[in-house]
Amino acid sequence: MALIVQKFGGASLATPEKMLFVADRIIREKKKGNQMVVVVSAPGDTTDNLIEFAEKLAKIPDERELDMLMATGEQQSIALMSMALIEKGFKAKSFTGAQLGIMTDTKHTRARILDIKGAGKIKKALKEGFICMVAGFQGITDKEEVTTLGRGGSDLTAVALATAIKADVCEFLKDVDGVFTANPGVVFDAKKIDFLSYDEMLELSSGGAQVLYNRCVEFAKNYNVVLHVRGTFTDKQGTIIKKEDKEMEKIIVSGITYNKKEAKITIKGVPDQPGIASLVFNKIADGDVNVDMIIQNVSDNGSTDISFTIFRKDAVKAVKVLDDIVKKVKAKGYSIDEKIGKVSAVGVGMRTHTGIASVMFKALADKKINIEMISTSEIKISVVVKEDQVEDAVKVLHSAFKLGKKDVKAE
Amino acid sequence: MALIVQKFGGASLATPEKMLFVADRIIREKKKGNQMVVVVSAPGDTTDNLIEFAEKLAKIPDERELDMLMATGEQQSIALMSMALIEKGFKAKSFTGAQLGIMTDTKHTRARILDIKGAGKIKKALKEGFICMVAGFQGITDKEEVTTLGRGGSDLTAVALATAIKADVCEFLKDVDGVFTANPGVVFDAKKIDFLSYDEMLELSSGGAQVLYNRCVEFAKNYNVVLHVRGTFTDKQGTIIKKEDKEMEKIIVSGITYNKKEAKITIKGVPDQPGIASLVFNKIADGDVNVDMIIQNVSDNGSTDISFTIFRKDAVKAVKVLDDIVKKVKAKGYSIDEKIGKVSAVGVGMRTHTGIASVMFKALADKKINIEMISTSEIKISVVVKEDQVEDAVKVLHSAFKLGKKDVKAE
Repeated sequence: MALIVQKFGGASLATPEKMLFVADRIIREKKKGNQMVVVVSAPGDTTDNLIEFAEKLAKIPDERELDMLMATGEQQSIALMSMALIEKGFKAKSFTGAQLGIMTDTKHTRARILDIKGAGKIKKALKEGFICMVAGFQGITDKEEVTTLGRGGSDLTAVALATAIKADVCEFLKDVDGVFTANPGVVFDAKKIDFLSYDEMLELSSGGAQVLYNRCVEFAKNYNVVLHVRGTFTDKQGTIIKKEDKEMEKIIVSGITYNKKEAKITIKGVPDQPGIASLVFNKIADGDVNVDMIIQNVSDNGSTDISFTIFRKDAVKAVKVLDDIVKKVKAKGYSIDEKIGKVSAVGVGMRTHTGIASVMFKALADKKINIEMISTSEIKISVVVKEDQVEDAVKVLHSAFKLGKKDVKAE
Repeated sequence: MALIVQKFGGASLATPEKMLFVADRIIREKKKGNQMVVVVSAPGDTTDNLIEFAEKLAKIPDERELDMLMATGEQQSIALMSMALIEKGFKAKSFTGAQLGIMTDTKHTRARILDIKGAGKIKKALKEGFICMVAGFQGITDKEEVTTLGRGGSDLTAVALATAIKADVCEFLKDVDGVFTANPGVVFDAKKIDFLSYDEMLELSSGGAQVLYNRCVEFAKNYNVVLHVRGTFTDKQGTIIKKEDKEMEKIIVSGITYNKKEAKITIKGVPDQPGIASLVFNKIADGDVNVDMIIQNVSDNGSTDISFTIFRKDAVKAVKVLDDIVKKVKAKGYSIDEKIGKVSAVGVGMRTHTGIASVMFKALADKKINIEMISTSEIKISVVVKEDQVEDAVKVLHSAFKLGKKDVKAE
């Protein structure tokens, strides 16, 4: 018997039929003798529809009131799901963020969880045999103001709750069966990963495989909560994300990930003086632009090129400050390339294995894929290539690191 | 400067356009220097839609969860309305039932208000210049369970709040401009009533003019809260409902009301013995049937007829117990007539004036309208007539008591 926190997203709750399906999914685990706490998002497009209504009343809706409004979506989910479970003959009870004392700071629409005061309430209800339905995404301040947690908020609620009640596992039910060695839409042979460390999951996510939000994985890492990404439509094990262990290190590369959401900017002929890089990136940050990879080429005749990648959606904002930067640092000019993609190989085994980078670069070179930028961390190597070569790069690396189903014995 | 509680129903809040209109209506009063507390229902059909969704998940949805679900509708209204007010440049703040400490008993879906703990919160926000948007219909128990107040719940919230914060007036904004001397759809000449006593309003409501719910008027009567039923689309005074005064007594009949929602049942040849009536109506009550008027004809040869009216919608339930009753009391049988209507004249002036009943009966007789039943209270005379004569009866009484616009000088 285990204490399980399950989290279902809004798409799984869009219609009465889907809710009844989810109810059965919960009941299957309950029937095994597990204690069940279930965190849910708002049903289907509820939140978007509410925001759309709000924007007809106010150009920029007041954030306090937006939280008050949005919090109703998850409250509807917990009530409806509890009804469905009760109808099916099980004890169930819903809890809002306020009722559970999910205490947050006062930053409306992007609040941070500070404490969960009502963990005892959940424990009590579980002891009495209830399935506990908890509203994700929402909390309350010490002044009883309703707050919401921003992007990935419901995932965060699930992990924070799992921490507070010392759950054995925090499960994320998805329409995919787990985290894959590569996007199965690109690599036909991609296979489900059984285990990942928190850091690998973080690197895979920031590489583009957005299965869980990083703030949720970071929270789990800090409190050592075992995460399980699994399919709604199957009872098979998905991907378990937990503290790194010896077994994990045996696998050098866990997965290949990519994203095409970045653009590359190069500032040319920057005088090679101390403090210049700092000046450039302070200005970029002032322009509210997030920078991902940064490289600075070898100095040549007292001047150098600085290249970095940003999110494409920030390109306009970046361009607004770039002219000013070029002038300030007395550079020769800048170029922006939106037709790039980032491809990454991630794995904790890299730490103890050498030569991974050279395998990677050789595989790409053999396929005549030019590498425009390189960036490495302890457990990740990322390269920037031309956008139209991204899929080829993913395929060739997936194969070079022998990640496919054909490369290993059946699970 | 006055402290005003305004209440808007869901139909006034069905679309963004209507909400913006309501916001302007509130702002007009605010601009006069008044302190504004506004109680709202859920927008448009929200509550019905939620219940419909719930009924796809459970035949009889759990009542605790139904309250959790339904309470979201009003929460959406207060958030959206606050945004609209803020957008228009005013300070506004929303409050849920829980946040205001609207304490109720634990009877889900039909809870009673016990106390409003958070009146101080409203007072503070008003002092700071906020327009306070309060969710109607909802409360919370001492165990922090969300409850709803049942039919007319939002009206009740408004009056209870007006009591708690000692408001000068509790306004109900309607698509009609007030309470009328008769249904203007029936009596072309009907005119708006300027003042009514609580008792008159209660009698008019139970007579069929459902402008306010009785529990709301009763609450107002108990705490002496001045009510004002007025039009959303006009700034003119509507009908003020307050403690009876000398002025009111000068008007003998305030209004004529009717309803066609009742059916008349006659139990024939009931042995005229003590305890028989009690037996009959206990059985009727056991059948979950509400009785309105009751008359017992003069005893004739040791047996009598008992007639009473019930809501037509309860007719099937009544028929189920009537055979049993007839057998038990050894009556000769029963008849049921669903083609009747009740017409009432209401006015506190009746108390001090004699001959009202005879004016009424004569007016009806002159028009050849047969009276099937009569029932009187201190401030009301009701008659049952054939359904197809109801409109005629209303017209003739409205004219007999000189209630029309033509009968008095312009207001």
